Amino acid sequence: MSEIEQIFSDARDWIIEAGEVIKAGLHGELKVSTKADEKDLVTEMDHEIERYFSEKIQKAYPAHLILAEEGSGHQIADTKGVLWIIDPLDGTMNFIHQKRNFAISVAIFVDGVGEIGLIYDVMSRELFHAVRGSGAFLNGNRLPKLTETGIPEALVAINAGFLRKNKLIDHEVMLRFAADVRGMRALGAASIQIAYVACGRFDAYMSMYLAPWDFAAGIVLMNEVGAEMTTFSGEAVNVLRRGSLFVSKPGFHQAFYRQYQVNIPAEDEC
Amino acid sequence: MSEIEQIFSDARDWIIEAGEVIKAGLHGELKVSTKADEKDLVTEMDHEIERYFSEKIQKAYPAHLILAEEGSGHQIADTKGVLWIIDPLDGTMNFIHQKRNFAISVAIFVDGVGEIGLIYDVMSRELFHAVRGSGAFLNGNRLPKLTETGIPEALVAINAGFLRKNKLIDHEVMLRFAADVRGMRALGAASIQIAYVACGRFDAYMSMYLAPWDFAAGIVLMNEVGAEMTTFSGEAVNVLRRGSLFVSKPGFHQAFYRQYQVNIPAEDEC
Repeated sequence: MSEIEQIFSDARDWIIEAGEVIKAGLHGELKVSTKADEKDLVTEMDHEIERYFSEKIQKAYPAHLILAEEGSGHQIADTKGVLWIIDPLDGTMNFIHQKRNFAISVAIFVDGVGEIGLIYDVMSRELFHAVRGSGAFLNGNRLPKLTETGIPEALVAINAGFLRKNKLIDHEVMLRFAADVRGMRALGAASIQIAYVACGRFDAYMSMYLAPWDFAAGIVLMNEVGAEMTTFSGEAVNVLRRGSLFVSKPGFHQAFYRQYQVNIPAEDEC
Repeated sequence: MSEIEQIFSDARDWIIEAGEVIKAGLHGELKVSTKADEKDLVTEMDHEIERYFSEKIQKAYPAHLILAEEGSGHQIADTKGVLWIIDPLDGTMNFIHQKRNFAISVAIFVDGVGEIGLIYDVMSRELFHAVRGSGAFLNGNRLPKLTETGIPEALVAINAGFLRKNKLIDHEVMLRFAADVRGMRALGAASIQIAYVACGRFDAYMSMYLAPWDFAAGIVLMNEVGAEMTTFSGEAVNVLRRGSLFVSKPGFHQAFYRQYQVNIPAEDEC
């Protein structure tokens, strides 16, 4: 077994076990706190799952670095070495309100290259994974390469903030786009919505502002299925930088920018 | 067993069996057609499930009337007698694109009173049901009465059309509302989103334009959990009439209309 295969095998075991920890904790009382603002929620479960991964990684791979949402990892200045990027509980608001539609997202980058991505929709028992060069899979079944879809036939997932006045894009353009596509959805968990693009359930996904742990595993999936993945201003996604995200089936980016006059600042941080 | 109990028992058996028919057909090629416009999709499965119910009902209850989405039922002028209101496949777009997040919705009204409601999220294997006066249930477990939730803590499901310019409400008001709540979701299946209000996963759900089969079963559920349910202009929902829908936890309607200046035409058909 190669080192990447060994890391993947461990990561897969851990993400499944972490899912069981979350499920076992669903019946207890949730202690909810807020972070940056009153919509930025965190629970003790977010911290517990992050600790679970940190301990496993530090024991098995003491030289590896960790970048994780709740801040228990390392200060990461560059992408040298083996870097684990972890969202212990993506979709915390869904977790609190619905006890479903949340995921654990784990990516392993080596010298800046996405080697392994895992997104586990815990309650649906759907594990999406990709290993660079070996394809993307849903519960072990290989996902086919994505094919083109036109805007009128597209089912598009968004962060609902895009439809409000925002710094990134004229919201009137987005409202027109929302009217032109076949349907718009908002599930409230970035990693799940990226995984849904990977398996063809959505044709595109757009978000105004995500952090590395929201999309790092998604990068590896997107590459393996031939998806397009950029910031909203069309730049390559930097795995260490927060910003906007636009992922889609092939050709959709081009169709979008051809059809809609969007004036996007080169610097898309908002 | 009372007559209502017998009808409920049959309806429950049939909805589960119809779900199995849909699941068995998921692997075949879908033949998709459009109805009123290019976003109004229908598949052969919609028709097959509607036929399944029509045949069962006509055999077991020849005197009962049927109002069903794909038009195979009776011409219904009033609510006299026993009326089955059926959406054989709510969320057809999700069915086509995702093979999940669709439901079968069945309601039984007697002389205009909602007696039985069933909403079956087929792929999640979640059956929501209510019998008037006996409570609402999810997979047989009784759902508690809903309690009040404030707008800043609310997770709200919408039909994304509400955020565009529309005839029913100033979309700027809706965009402000979308910014004020904790989160907005759009799942793309009315009956599932109403069921999610019934079990507390959403605090409210709003749609601009629904048909009787989209919400008839939901009416029975909403009554049993103490939810508020009106058109967007605050009128009682008429189970034979298309129009807007606003369902929520208790007190939410009042908080919404107090906080937002909305000029809603008395006639809310759009």
